[in-house]
Amino acid sequence: MLNSKIKKHIIQLKQKKYRKEYKEFLLEGLKGIRDAIDADAEIIVIVVDGSRRDEIEFQDLVAYTKKHNIAVEYCGREDISLIKSTETFPGILAVIAQDESYVEDIENGPVLYLHDINDPGNMGTIIRSADWFGIKHILLSQHCVDIYNPKVVRSTMGSLFHVYIHRIQNVFKNIEQMKEKGFHIVALDMNGKDISDAQTTKKTLYIIGSESHGVPDELEKLIDTRYTIAGKGNAESLNVAVATAILLYTIS
Amino acid sequence: MLNSKIKKHIIQLKQKKYRKEYKEFLLEGLKGIRDAIDADAEIIVIVVDGSRRDEIEFQDLVAYTKKHNIAVEYCGREDISLIKSTETFPGILAVIAQDESYVEDIENGPVLYLHDINDPGNMGTIIRSADWFGIKHILLSQHCVDIYNPKVVRSTMGSLFHVYIHRIQNVFKNIEQMKEKGFHIVALDMNGKDISDAQTTKKTLYIIGSESHGVPDELEKLIDTRYTIAGKGNAESLNVAVATAILLYTIS
Repeated sequence: MLNSKIKKHIIQLKQKKYRKEYKEFLLEGLKGIRDAIDADAEIIVIVVDGSRRDEIEFQDLVAYTKKHNIAVEYCGREDISLIKSTETFPGILAVIAQDESYVEDIENGPVLYLHDINDPGNMGTIIRSADWFGIKHILLSQHCVDIYNPKVVRSTMGSLFHVYIHRIQNVFKNIEQMKEKGFHIVALDMNGKDISDAQTTKKTLYIIGSESHGVPDELEKLIDTRYTIAGKGNAESLNVAVATAILLYTIS
Repeated sequence: MLNSKIKKHIIQLKQKKYRKEYKEFLLEGLKGIRDAIDADAEIIVIVVDGSRRDEIEFQDLVAYTKKHNIAVEYCGREDISLIKSTETFPGILAVIAQDESYVEDIENGPVLYLHDINDPGNMGTIIRSADWFGIKHILLSQHCVDIYNPKVVRSTMGSLFHVYIHRIQNVFKNIEQMKEKGFHIVALDMNGKDISDAQTTKKTLYIIGSESHGVPDELEKLIDTRYTIAGKGNAESLNVAVATAILLYTIS
C-alpha cells in the first residue's frame, strides 16, 4: 500500500549513514510529530497506519497536517514491520529534515559542549534538560552518539526541535574561537570549586566530559574555571546526564 | 566445566520470579563485585571465565575472595552464553544475597519514596544519585521495576550496596506511619513552591511520582509541602531521574 520509493527511503533512514547522507531522520508518535509541526520543523512526509486512519486522534493530526501542507501517506500491516523503529509502532511516523545551524553564528549562551557522550539515553536526557532550563545551543564532538538515532529522538521528548545542536569538527579551534569572542570556558569535573558558588554569565561555555574519560586533556589550556558537584555518600560519580542537569539547574 | 546445579541456579536468577524466590541476584564485572565484597554483601558464589583465569585482574580478585571465604568456580565457553546477562560477558559473575531491611526501623532520613518507577535506567540512576548525596533509605511501591534486574544493577554502578531499599506493600499505611513518627511529607510535582527555597530536615520523606502519572491521588492527603523545579524553555517536563537528582542536590 505504501509507495515503494518512500518505503525504501524510510528503511534506509534507520541507518546512520543514510541519515547523514539525506540529512533527514525518523520520528514516531502523535505527540512528537505534533511538537515537530509546532516547532516549524521541515516535515518531508508523514506515514499513518491505514488500519487506524479512522481513529479520532489520527484524523485530528491529519487535518492539522493539511493546514501545514504536509504530505500524508497510508501504509498496510505488512509495511509496518519494515518501517518501524520501535517494538510497538504507535501508528504514525514522520520523515523530518535535520536542522542545520552554524557554530560561528553563536553570539550568546550559555552554551553546552558535550564531549564523546555515547549513550543514547544520556544524550536524549541532556537535550531534554537543556530545553527545560532554556539552553539554546549544544555543541557535540564527533564521537558523540548520532542525535537522530531513534533512542535519542525518543528520550528528548520533543526537545530536539527547541535546541540548536551543532556537531563540530575541530573542537579545540571552535572552543578557542568562542573564547576569543569573549566566552568564559567552564568545565564540570571532579576537582573544581563547589558548583553552589557558580557565577554565570550568558557568555559562558560549559564543557561536559564523556561517561568514561571525563574532560579531554587537549582542552585543558582553554579552561578558565572548574566546578564540581559535592557528594557525601559512597558513590564514585554521578551519571553524566544527572550531573549536567544539576549544572543547568544551578546556573538557571 | 561449571557444576550443573550452580549453572541451573544462575540461569534461574535471570528471571524475576526466581530472584524473588531465592532472594538472590546476579552481578557481573570485576569492579562491581569488588564493591560488593567491600560493602560486606553476602556473596553466595563467584564464577570466573576459565579461559581468563590467568589474567592478573582475575587472579587479584580471586586472591581477594579467598580472604573473605567466598567460593569461586570456573566455567567454560559453552557455559558463558547460558549464564551471562550482558552481550559481552566481562569474565566474572557473582550470585549475591538480597539485603533485607525493614521500613519500620527507619528513624531518620531524608527518605525517598519512588512511586511506580518502571524504567530500569531511571531506577539505577536514582539509586546512584541517592548514594552520591548520602541518602540511606529508599522506599519503592509494588509496581516499581525489580531493582535486581541486571539493567538496574548495572546502572547503579555499585550504589545498590550502599543504600537500604525497601519495597513496601501498603504505601498509604507506611507513609502514614512515617508521618506519625514525625516525618514531614514532601512531594516533587509541577505545581509546588520553587525548590530553590526548599527547607529540609532529616525527618523528611520525599515522594517522587512515576514517569507517566506523577504523584498518586491516594497520597494527596498525607502531603505537607510540594516543590517544583522551575523551567524556562519549551520542554514539558524533566526526566524523573534528573528531577530527583536536582531535588537531592538542593537538600544536600
